[in-house]
Amino acid sequence: MKLHHVGIVVRELEEAVERFRLLGFRETARGFAEAFGVAISWLEPKHSPEVEAEAPALELLQPLGDGPVRSFLEKRGEGLHHVAFAVPSIESKLKELKAQGVPLVDEAPREGFRGHRVAFVHPRGFHGVLVELVEEPRPGG
Amino acid sequence: MKLHHVGIVVRELEEAVERFRLLGFRETARGFAEAFGVAISWLEPKHSPEVEAEAPALELLQPLGDGPVRSFLEKRGEGLHHVAFAVPSIESKLKELKAQGVPLVDEAPREGFRGHRVAFVHPRGFHGVLVELVEEPRPGG
Repeated sequence: MKLHHVGIVVRELEEAVERFRLLGFRETARGFAEAFGVAISWLEPKHSPEVEAEAPALELLQPLGDGPVRSFLEKRGEGLHHVAFAVPSIESKLKELKAQGVPLVDEAPREGFRGHRVAFVHPRGFHGVLVELVEEPRPGG
Repeated sequence: MKLHHVGIVVRELEEAVERFRLLGFRETARGFAEAFGVAISWLEPKHSPEVEAEAPALELLQPLGDGPVRSFLEKRGEGLHHVAFAVPSIESKLKELKAQGVPLVDEAPREGFRGHRVAFVHPRGFHGVLVELVEEPRPGG
């Protein structure tokens, strides 16, 4: 498994997209994840000899309606929200984690950004880190 | 620039190292960053045809004394702490960010884990995200 992207909650996408350009990340996709009530901006590093095509992305999340992302923003403010890892099969990973006693948010995959299959694991399972599993191929690929 | 590692604050390294093995990450180094008052466990994904050697790491941080990491733990609990990006030159990146009005934590590089040169940028500069710059070569490399 490898890191797929880092999710960041922001109040407003536009300004954040501009800011993260200072770290060499640019927007390569924009859209919605309706199941999660968010607008998403997908930022990828500029490819170069040092940065491979599959380098992890930043996912900016702006809440559109009520839901967990809006609650997060109101409670904790803007900032780091989740870390996503690429898995070949979500079902088998969920099964494995459950067998180890890891609490899940999603017992089955849901539709994430651009139709990809994703599932969240409860932060209690990973020392306060909200973990997302994303089935390959990666959304930015 | 590309993602170098994700920093995670935990209460106690040992248990957390075991837990993150479930995501395919294993400890490849253990040590201290004295300037930051933390013990560190460095976790890397197992390399495979899908996971390149330079894939981003997870950095687990356990506070040892008083300081910002201890304060973070007491205030927010365990969880995501910072995101680090690899840069060829910290000085020139700090200069560039400062010229753009981005508030810095460190005006000059400090010594991070295993003697590498690092600098932190204030979370106000990146929508609540604490950003670390790490001068290549990467600590896990």
